[in-house]
Amino acid sequence: MGPDAGGASHIARLAVDEAMPLDCGRSLGPIDIAYTTHGRMNADRSNAVLICHALTGDQHVVGTHPVTGRAGWWETLVGPGRPIDTDRMFVICANILGGCMGSTGPASINPQTGTVWGTDFPLVTIADMVRAQKLLIDHLGIDRLFAVVGGSMGGMQVLQWAVSYPDRVFAAVPIATAARHSAQNIAFHEVGRQAIIADPQWHQGRYADHDTRPTKGLAVARMTAHITYLSEMALHTKFGRRLQDRQRMSYGFEADFQVESYLRHQGISFVDRFDANSYLYITRAMDYFDIAADHGGVLANAFRGSRVRFCLISFSSDWLFPTVESRTIARAINAVAGNVSFTEIDTDRGHDAFLLDEPVFARIVSGFMDGAAAHAGLVRP
Amino acid sequence: MGPDAGGASHIARLAVDEAMPLDCGRSLGPIDIAYTTHGRMNADRSNAVLICHALTGDQHVVGTHPVTGRAGWWETLVGPGRPIDTDRMFVICANILGGCMGSTGPASINPQTGTVWGTDFPLVTIADMVRAQKLLIDHLGIDRLFAVVGGSMGGMQVLQWAVSYPDRVFAAVPIATAARHSAQNIAFHEVGRQAIIADPQWHQGRYADHDTRPTKGLAVARMTAHITYLSEMALHTKFGRRLQDRQRMSYGFEADFQVESYLRHQGISFVDRFDANSYLYITRAMDYFDIAADHGGVLANAFRGSRVRFCLISFSSDWLFPTVESRTIARAINAVAGNVSFTEIDTDRGHDAFLLDEPVFARIVSGFMDGAAAHAGLVRP
Repeated sequence: MGPDAGGASHIARLAVDEAMPLDCGRSLGPIDIAYTTHGRMNADRSNAVLICHALTGDQHVVGTHPVTGRAGWWETLVGPGRPIDTDRMFVICANILGGCMGSTGPASINPQTGTVWGTDFPLVTIADMVRAQKLLIDHLGIDRLFAVVGGSMGGMQVLQWAVSYPDRVFAAVPIATAARHSAQNIAFHEVGRQAIIADPQWHQGRYADHDTRPTKGLAVARMTAHITYLSEMALHTKFGRRLQDRQRMSYGFEADFQVESYLRHQGISFVDRFDANSYLYITRAMDYFDIAADHGGVLANAFRGSRVRFCLISFSSDWLFPTVESRTIARAINAVAGNVSFTEIDTDRGHDAFLLDEPVFARIVSGFMDGAAAHAGLVRP
Repeated sequence: MGPDAGGASHIARLAVDEAMPLDCGRSLGPIDIAYTTHGRMNADRSNAVLICHALTGDQHVVGTHPVTGRAGWWETLVGPGRPIDTDRMFVICANILGGCMGSTGPASINPQTGTVWGTDFPLVTIADMVRAQKLLIDHLGIDRLFAVVGGSMGGMQVLQWAVSYPDRVFAAVPIATAARHSAQNIAFHEVGRQAIIADPQWHQGRYADHDTRPTKGLAVARMTAHITYLSEMALHTKFGRRLQDRQRMSYGFEADFQVESYLRHQGISFVDRFDANSYLYITRAMDYFDIAADHGGVLANAFRGSRVRFCLISFSSDWLFPTVESRTIARAINAVAGNVSFTEIDTDRGHDAFLLDEPVFARIVSGFMDGAAAHAGLVRP
């Protein structure tokens, strides 16, 4: 199926003739990048929108997920008549390099040994993920993406796209993200990694050789992270101190409170669809992310001369990627006379708000996409 | 050594003739309560101050800790000439029931089986801990405590003292605490418990029988909790994104960032001094804590008719026990015309601020203690 078909899954084999260099100094190739497309590419290939997914997301941005059977993770924002309108745009969403839904990652086979990479897989950075996406965009014959859009770690990729390939991006929508990972966020990631590494089923990352998986450690990692995705108010509103299936406390260690039961479910269901080593690699990539550090310590330098149109969005109760992080980016772009709009959405749903039905958020993305399309001279197909 | 000696460690055997009833419906006795005393009791036994420790604290409030060799955990606040002045007051600090520093807890021997209790130990609540402290105060022949003082879970005990035994307390100083544990705090505790339970060395709580300990799980639990004790700003100021002993990233899973190294150290050093089952029991006691629920859902009812003088203190950057929790308590006491002062200390050091050298905090405690002593007719010995 060609790239102009709608709602389809593909795998592209890239970096075949020449291995792709990585920030760590090693190189990798050939690599597989699994992606989905939605809508139709127009004749001059000017209507492509790349969606970048978050830490535990994947390419199934719309449509039924093949593993979980659930709806796509961004159907609130992407689809026919939605803010990112697949009647008008050609939407591409690729599983990141290092991921575990079809793209090359630590669960893939190392062609040189014929066994699973495990922790022999080279460490990849956000910039490496974007390099792989760039190879995909080249492969699809797209000179310039109309837009790159993503939240959380997806937003990091959006920023990296704009910084690495400013001439290949017309508009960028980094949502609920930051130009560098904070000490507190590194700390939470480190706890998750240590939970995985402490699981004896991890086997120094070589669990595939032992035909097992560190599911308990990965579940604990997911539980920790999940708390950071919600606001205190969201947890309070959703659960408070309500008891689970009981009139009174058990006076034991069962899940007495609904919030405990919910967290345990988040942990257990996650391990069915995610690879523990991928979790280690991807969290590490986020921790390393620091755009200013790559530009002499001055964030504004990263955007100097850029003609990319930015639409930054944050959520008021997001304490993982608080508004101040987006404001820092907006100021840096303004400092070099870039083109940037910035909105904080008032919500008590925390970081997860970017994945939820938030009407004001949807309206802002819709308005920005329409305005940018007009500026780009994109006519309805 | 008698209770009027200064700077001494004791163990009291309590509930000997009659087992102590617990909230869970079971009873426990005899119980050991390990405690330290500092300063001298006056002739009419009216100058006793009970210090209540937090989740991972113990009775070594001042003086060298016998296991870690470090200074007492509250030497900033307690000692000769300090706000809680041992030249003037007789300070008592007891290891909580359920603890692991000499008081009866899950690591103690079950007299009925001759083996370690483990998870056969009954679940204890904050009110049970306070019941045991009350037996100790009876044992010491003290009719009324001049003051009960504590931070975090220690503050919960202070509140419980004032509610359970209002006639036995003249003044109460609940610091950085809450009248009920929030959904977010329960969630963080649940992650810590799951980390311990996921450790195969936990052996369903019977690790003593296997001559092992779930140190990896306990270390992960401690790391998670430790993040919540600091503010985002404190982590940023203390560590930022600074690298550990390196000029550049390792592109691996070593502790590249100082914050990772710090957290790992916190986890590893904690397991040397703490019992994993105690951690399960004590976190559960905090989760269950809800004073309003015990009083028809109305917090103010808990304080109706109380003559206890309260001094509530919170810290502006504490997100584990935010200021709103203390304000809720102050309002409840005010609603029944109680005697309460409330101060929020401006600091960026997070929850841990109550353990640190914070001059304004020390001055407020000092002023309150002096004022209360005057009202109580306490003359310098």
